[in-house]
Amino acid sequence: MTDSGPRLVSSPAEMQAETAAMRLQARTIGFVPTMGALHDGHMSLVRRARTENDAVVVSIFVNPTQFGPGEDFDAYPRDRAADLEKCASEGVDLVFAPGGGDMYPEGHCTTVDVLRLTDNLCGLSRPGHFRGVATVVLKLLNIVQPHRAYFGEKDYQQFLVVKRMVRDLFIPVEIVPCELFRDRDGLAMSSRNNYLSAEERVDALVLKEALDHFRRRVEEGELSAVTLMGEMAELIESVPSTQIDYVAIVDADTLEDLSTIKGRVLAALAVMVGDTRLIDNTVVEV
Amino acid sequence: MTDSGPRLVSSPAEMQAETAAMRLQARTIGFVPTMGALHDGHMSLVRRARTENDAVVVSIFVNPTQFGPGEDFDAYPRDRAADLEKCASEGVDLVFAPGGGDMYPEGHCTTVDVLRLTDNLCGLSRPGHFRGVATVVLKLLNIVQPHRAYFGEKDYQQFLVVKRMVRDLFIPVEIVPCELFRDRDGLAMSSRNNYLSAEERVDALVLKEALDHFRRRVEEGELSAVTLMGEMAELIESVPSTQIDYVAIVDADTLEDLSTIKGRVLAALAVMVGDTRLIDNTVVEV
Repeated sequence: MTDSGPRLVSSPAEMQAETAAMRLQARTIGFVPTMGALHDGHMSLVRRARTENDAVVVSIFVNPTQFGPGEDFDAYPRDRAADLEKCASEGVDLVFAPGGGDMYPEGHCTTVDVLRLTDNLCGLSRPGHFRGVATVVLKLLNIVQPHRAYFGEKDYQQFLVVKRMVRDLFIPVEIVPCELFRDRDGLAMSSRNNYLSAEERVDALVLKEALDHFRRRVEEGELSAVTLMGEMAELIESVPSTQIDYVAIVDADTLEDLSTIKGRVLAALAVMVGDTRLIDNTVVEV
Repeated sequence: MTDSGPRLVSSPAEMQAETAAMRLQARTIGFVPTMGALHDGHMSLVRRARTENDAVVVSIFVNPTQFGPGEDFDAYPRDRAADLEKCASEGVDLVFAPGGGDMYPEGHCTTVDVLRLTDNLCGLSRPGHFRGVATVVLKLLNIVQPHRAYFGEKDYQQFLVVKRMVRDLFIPVEIVPCELFRDRDGLAMSSRNNYLSAEERVDALVLKEALDHFRRRVEEGELSAVTLMGEMAELIESVPSTQIDYVAIVDADTLEDLSTIKGRVLAALAVMVGDTRLIDNTVVEV
């Protein structure tokens, strides 16, 4: 199957039939949902899915409903040929690449919300984003019906939202979190890194530096969230091309604000570098 | 299996395991979701499910999230023993009767909305009702994972909402509509008929009379929705114990208001008879 490359399916009904047949043969299915423009971060998920399942399905769908007005839906990088080649080289069995009309047929009017968990961080700065994410992920899970679905912790809030949705709705799938994958320079892998100029790319390293600073200061015993957020913000603002969207320190399970570092704690950043919005995060346990 | 009665399951995980095993044996599963207080309307759905599937699952769950404040959640009739007996006599295989905490575990925060279709009729007079319905039906479908699920057309808007949700979210289940079932006197079967006094029961027949009048007048050639709604309302208001919630004439697929009877048309009523809210409807095709 690897030699001939993955089978490309665009119809939800056909995809459903393919994986239903696999399930009847008791083959386990690992699923990696993506928006394409596949990078090594995605491929680390694919490789993990490959080792843990009999079959691997990758979806490629730039989901319009998770982009706000004025966001980069139109500009979002799309490179089908390169994506398929990468999937082929990792032994992906099926690539599901539906069109917008396949996923949102005429008259569609069903939406899924995960409340509270989406009240802050990217949920606050991108209204409607997680409704779009939750709705499309539920559609994809119903179409592919995998045993396991793989989500990167770079999109930490997205991972939590999907995990909560799956629990609340009793969706029979295991959501597998995968460690954030960094490039050699330390920048968190993202399809949006394609937007960065060479200079901005260097400037963008301040996100990782701010998170490293956070970890170091917590290890030194600094437990005040306000102090830590202030120090991270100062570091980031020292780079002129950046503009902070948010610097947050929250409970890593509930995403509720913390005043003191205690338990599992998430430090999360969203920063504009030039015109590109980047996110990064780290979890400490105290 | 009929002799010993249906197996009673309250844990979602156990239910999921039971039906997963059935699916692996290629047994088809028919599902009838109910709020209990089973009457002949429910049992007509169960009998149909029995003839069309290898196994039949009935759920009994009085879903709190589809009741508004001041509605009859606490008073809603509950009779587990009688329900189980009826299920036993119709050869039901599994009865799923979870508790509130099973269906809504601590921290639950996921909701499903079907927009537009819920803008009028019961969606307008019971805000939040269909969010509760869609969310719990999705949970139940994920837990039971049936091949077919049966919904009565008495709750016509509910049937449309569920059908649209299933289509929009690609849920692999066939939603089977079942004809409204009337008692011998013509009253649409409803667990809420239990609330009626003997006199109110007679008064309640005016709902059916208004719908019969509607059908007759359409056959005679009256195609003005305003005229027909006016005549139905006048008929109902002639019975002093009634109070109209709504009298509506809408497109039977989109539930959009109509001014002229054309195509498949739904006439739908919600009427208080004493303290009891009753609904009824009929579809004509012109």
